[in-house]
Formats: sequence, C-alpha cells, structure tokens
Amino acid sequence: MNSRFPLLFLVLLSICSLAQQTRVTPPVAPPPMPAALVTLELHEDNSVTFRFRAPNAKEVSLRREGATDALSMQKDESGVWTVTTPPLAPDYYGYSIIVDGQRTIDPFNSLLKPNLLSTENMVHVPGPPSLPWELNDVPHGEIHHHFYKSVAAGDDRDYYVYTPPGYDPAARTRYPVLYLLHGYSDDASGWTAVGRANVILDNLIAQKKAKPMIVVMPLGYGTMEMIHVGWGGIFNHPEVREKNLSGFHEALLNEVMPKVESEYHVINDRNSRAIAGLSMGGSESLLNGLNDLDKFAWIGAFSAGGLPEPFEKDFPGLDAKANQQLKLLWIACGTEDRLITANRNLRDWLKQKGIQHTDIETPGMHTWMVWRRNLAEFAPLLFR
Amino acid sequence: MNSRFPLLFLVLLSICSLAQQTRVTPPVAPPPMPAALVTLELHEDNSVTFRFRAPNAKEVSLRREGATDALSMQKDESGVWTVTTPPLAPDYYGYSIIVDGQRTIDPFNSLLKPNLLSTENMVHVPGPPSLPWELNDVPHGEIHHHFYKSVAAGDDRDYYVYTPPGYDPAARTRYPVLYLLHGYSDDASGWTAVGRANVILDNLIAQKKAKPMIVVMPLGYGTMEMIHVGWGGIFNHPEVREKNLSGFHEALLNEVMPKVESEYHVINDRNSRAIAGLSMGGSESLLNGLNDLDKFAWIGAFSAGGLPEPFEKDFPGLDAKANQQLKLLWIACGTEDRLITANRNLRDWLKQKGIQHTDIETPGMHTWMVWRRNLAEFAPLLFR
Repeated sequence: MNSRFPLLFLVLLSICSLAQQTRVTPPVAPPPMPAALVTLELHEDNSVTFRFRAPNAKEVSLRREGATDALSMQKDESGVWTVTTPPLAPDYYGYSIIVDGQRTIDPFNSLLKPNLLSTENMVHVPGPPSLPWELNDVPHGEIHHHFYKSVAAGDDRDYYVYTPPGYDPAARTRYPVLYLLHGYSDDASGWTAVGRANVILDNLIAQKKAKPMIVVMPLGYGTMEMIHVGWGGIFNHPEVREKNLSGFHEALLNEVMPKVESEYHVINDRNSRAIAGLSMGGSESLLNGLNDLDKFAWIGAFSAGGLPEPFEKDFPGLDAKANQQLKLLWIACGTEDRLITANRNLRDWLKQKGIQHTDIETPGMHTWMVWRRNLAEFAPLLFR
Repeated sequence: MNSRFPLLFLVLLSICSLAQQTRVTPPVAPPPMPAALVTLELHEDNSVTFRFRAPNAKEVSLRREGATDALSMQKDESGVWTVTTPPLAPDYYGYSIIVDGQRTIDPFNSLLKPNLLSTENMVHVPGPPSLPWELNDVPHGEIHHHFYKSVAAGDDRDYYVYTPPGYDPAARTRYPVLYLLHGYSDDASGWTAVGRANVILDNLIAQKKAKPMIVVMPLGYGTMEMIHVGWGGIFNHPEVREKNLSGFHEALLNEVMPKVESEYHVINDRNSRAIAGLSMGGSESLLNGLNDLDKFAWIGAFSAGGLPEPFEKDFPGLDAKANQQLKLLWIACGTEDRLITANRNLRDWLKQKGIQHTDIETPGMHTWMVWRRNLAEFAPLLFR
C-alpha cells in the first residue's frame, strides 16, 4: 500500500469530517463513500438532465430562464427527483429547483447566477466558437474590481472595469468607454458573471468587429433601499424609485466617471462615451443619456423597464435637435418580453418627436440570452 | 393616484411574472404580495435566526462553520423551519441548511461562500472596526481578475491580483509580492470572496502594520481532475495528487509568476517574494517554498494538509543550511483542527533538522475564521 495513504487520508478525512460533524478514527484504508449524485448532466444532443435529492418533498420542478413553463421532476425510490429537458440551443441558462413551492438551488453546481434577491444556478450548453459568449483562444482583457465609499448613495460599494487585451496603463493609447448597466436585482458583477461581457468583448475585438474599448460596470442603484423593499415593496414606494434614479445619476456622474477618467486612459469626449443597459439599466441609460447629451453620444437600451408614460415627464424638452448630438440611439426588446409594448410605445413617441433611433426586436423573453446577443450586436456599432 | 403607477406596475409585474410563469393582466393597483420570508435575522446580542421553508421535510438542521454540532431547526404550522443560535463572536460564518440529509443553501441570502464542490451561504456578524476583516473607511486597493490558457494544466483559468491603495501602474514604485493560495475545493476567488484578503490588507496597510504589497491569488490546482474526482475520489487516486502538485508548481513558476512580474511593478528578488496558503495551499506553499528557496524567502502554512510522512520524501536534502536563506517560516494551525497532529509532527521534524520556524497555535478548527486571523498576523511580518 502506498505509504502516503494513511496520513493523506487522515488529512482529507479531517476536512471532510469537519463538514460532516462526525467523530471518526482514521482507519488504514478509506471507507466506502456513498456514490456522489450527478446533479447536472449534459447529453450529446444538448438535452440536460437535472437531479435533486428531496426524499420527502411532494412536488419538485425545474424553472429555467426563458422557458414558459416549469418542468415537473419525477422521484425515484432513493428520493432523487429527475428531469431531462429537450435539446437546448447552445447558451447559458439560469435555473432554480422549486421544492414544494420553495425556490432553491443545487449547491453542487458551482456555476452560479448571482442576484441580490434570489441566487440561481446556471447551466452552460456549449456551442460553436462563433457564438459571441464562448471562451475562445484569443487574447483576454482584464477585469478590475474597485471599492469606494459613495456619498451619493451613502454606502460602501463597488464597480468593475474591463480593459481590453493589450491595454497598457503605462502607454499613451487612449480608449473610448462604454458604461454598461445591469438590471433590477442584479449586482455590479452581473454583466461579467452572467452577461459574459468580458468574453463577448474579447471575441469581438479579436475578430476586429468591435473597437477596443473600456467597459465600466457600476452598481446600478442610487439607494440600496431599492433592494431592501424587494419586488413587492417597489410597487408601494414610488419615492424609492425616485431616490434610486437620482442617486444613481449622482453616483455615476460625480463618483464613478471621475474615478474612471482619472485612473484609466480614456478619451474624455462625448463622442467616445457610450451608455447602455438592460431592463432597469436600460431606463437608466435612456434617462442619463438622453438628458445629458453633452456627456454621451451613444445610447443603448436592452428591454428597458420602469419608464412610465407620459414620457415627456422623464425627458423634458427632448426634441429633434437631439439628432445633431446623437451618434446612436439603439432600442432593443425581445418580442416575447412583456415589456415589448412599453418599448414600442417609447419608440412611437420618439418617432413622433422626430428623434432618430434604431429599432431592434429579436425573439426572446426578459432574459440574459437576449441581452448577451444585444451586447454582441450593439458593441460593434460603437465609436465608428 | 400617481400617474406613474400603472406602467411602473406593468413593467415590474412583467419581470416578476416572468419568474412566476403565470399570465396576468395588469390591474390599476398592485395586488397583495405574500409577505416575504425573512430568512436571516441578526439580533442585537449577535445571535442569529435562520429560517427555511420546507413544508414536507421531516428533519431540517443548520450546519455552521466552526460549530461542532448541527443545530436542529423547528417547523411551524406554515412549513417554515427556524433556529436561533446563541450569541456569536463577530465574524463571517459559512453555513448550509440540511434538509432530510440534503445539503442546500438559502437562495435569498446573496452572501455566498463559493466552493467548487459545494456552495454555502455566509452570515456576517459585524464587529468593531479593529477586527481586521471589517470594512473601514480607509483607502482601498483594487482586485484584478486575469484570464489565460494554461499549458501546465491544459485548461483555461484565472488568477486574481490585489494591488494596494495608491498603486500607480505609471509610477516607478515597486512592491514586494505575496503569493496566497487557497485550499482544496476553493477556487481562485476564495481568499477575497471568503478570506477578505483585500479588506485585511487595506486595514493593515492603513494602520501601517503591514508594508504595502501586491498579493497574487492563483488557482491552486495543477489539474482540475483534483476537483472532478471529488472528496471521495482523491483517496483512490494518488496519481491525481501528484499531478496536481507538479502541475501547480509549473503553472505558478512558469505561467503566473512571469505574467505578474511583467505586468506589475514588483521587486524581482527572493527577499521580496513570499508564499503562503491554507490547507492544501499550505502544503503547496511549503513544497514550492522550501524546495525553491532561490525564489521565496518568506513562507507561511496555515493549517497545512496533505503532506505525508516521511517528510524527507517531499523535502529531499532540506537541512539547516536553509536558515541562511529563510527570512520566515511560519507554521500555524488551530488547536481543534484535526490536522494539528500532522502540523506538530512537521514542526518536530523541522526542529530535528535544525530549521528555524515560528510555531503558531490558535483556538479553532479547520475554518476561515482561523485563516483570516492567520493572514492578519502573518502579513505584518513580511518584507521587514
């Protein structure tokens, strides 16, 4: 027997047993371990099997991002619930396991979809290298994580900055900047951890489809009360929405932008500054962009949500003169998204005002599958 | 009624209903929402109440990092299980909810303890600003996330680099470097996401207790097979352990170190290079440090695990001559850690060989509570 085994075993058993909270005496050989449950299994045809152990549950189902209905899972005699999806299009999908009405996640799948209101798992169904979010053997940019005390929001917070491959802080090359905003309930890591923005930019830049650019991903809340009140509370607290938008405006313009512009080699010029975001972040991009055209020439809204009519109220004085300053106003929404009507109404209003913009409708619901594709389509248009 | 309500409601309901997968027609006023369950509640005396909804479960308990026994949770008539801990010492604690033997996590607590084998939640019991891991109003360093293709390990992987407050890539100031390694089942984010290494360094540097330094946190596996075989499999695969250690050695010395030394302003000198780590990372620090004293003058092992006796086998030819090169060999372990005997044996062996080292024993088990304190005690000793 390998002489390293007993101590190696003791060592590992010690760590295991810490988790198991049982007292054991190390034997000379490892004890039989229960076979680990394979909780996530990807098949050759891109169908996926999900398993979850819940021996006493009455009803377990799988809720997957972009699927209209939850899939019922079936229990076997060992208490493990299983379901296999139909073949899925290559993508990253968020999902939760619903156990007797309680949302939960699979702790054995370490691929997580971070969210301030409810963490989910993700499953990657790999596709060809041509898909913009697939990791390829191309030069990679770097993600910088910054921390600061915000006066505007009254808290300690963070933001992320993507620098493109070859970015050299000691060189003189200056880059344009995209401010990229997440949606309600996401945190500042959303666009990288779920949206794969760094991978998408790496690929687009390697293919020379997008100009090398810096991407800044701030925390998109002007007040964290917006999260504390939750999905339910924001209906009853219009003052929180107002505080959220005004606080974010202040945090972005007076805190994040000056820090970025002093720390990174950016071109400080409206023609080299874009702002875009998804859902709540789409509205924030429109509000901050269209109301401050001196700062931003390129604006993108992906499935924007939270802009009430009449639009005049949020965009006072906006008219066709804006066309002289706007390089791009790009408004996208999935056709199965419940926000499609609100987005169509907004575009009708812009048309009526004579404000040039690009209308994009793609298949899909209110999902990251739509927003990754939006970013891959939008980024190449910038800074031309 | 505020005219913004109907559309705001539609917008938010759209997003909600996407998750709920039900079709709704927007009413003029929001419908009553079920009261959200408060799953985590910190009390004034530092006791914590945990709640988890599992109406059909037979047995639910809470397993907390550093607690010897799991705490039984009690069910109420609504199917919610609850337990309140005794008052806890201020710290960050990992925990899981065990539902009928199945480990799970609370998806509504977004503070996560990432782990490649099993994600957990964390709870922060806040303490005075003097605790080294508490966020204080001091200048903050920055965390850089790097991605590259590893030839040594044959995969795409990442590493993190902490630069201290005031680090200026365009200036000429050069810094010493600490290579800081995580434990088995952690990923490269472990030392920042769980170990709060950036916060600890920010605080120590602000207090002038530690010298400003760069901290490099690589992925600590030489092969990801080490994770694929799992806790059970590593008992049966000594060849995976060997491949893991040799692959990591190669990835660290031939890939991560050259990249760091070309991208950051570091002092390229053994006297300005430290290596330390926890558990598996402690062993890797000893193996890479003591066997390559030309590279590292400062070595730390926190609860090192995985070094089999006889030690001569892993440290061939090591003897008292090492004292001429070693600036610090710091070996720490918690007294309630099952690895304490292995660590004492190692120190006895070093003593017998005449190799100077610092023995540290502190209260505690194999936990991050011990390792955060280890880092806070070890970092101030470096580069003196």
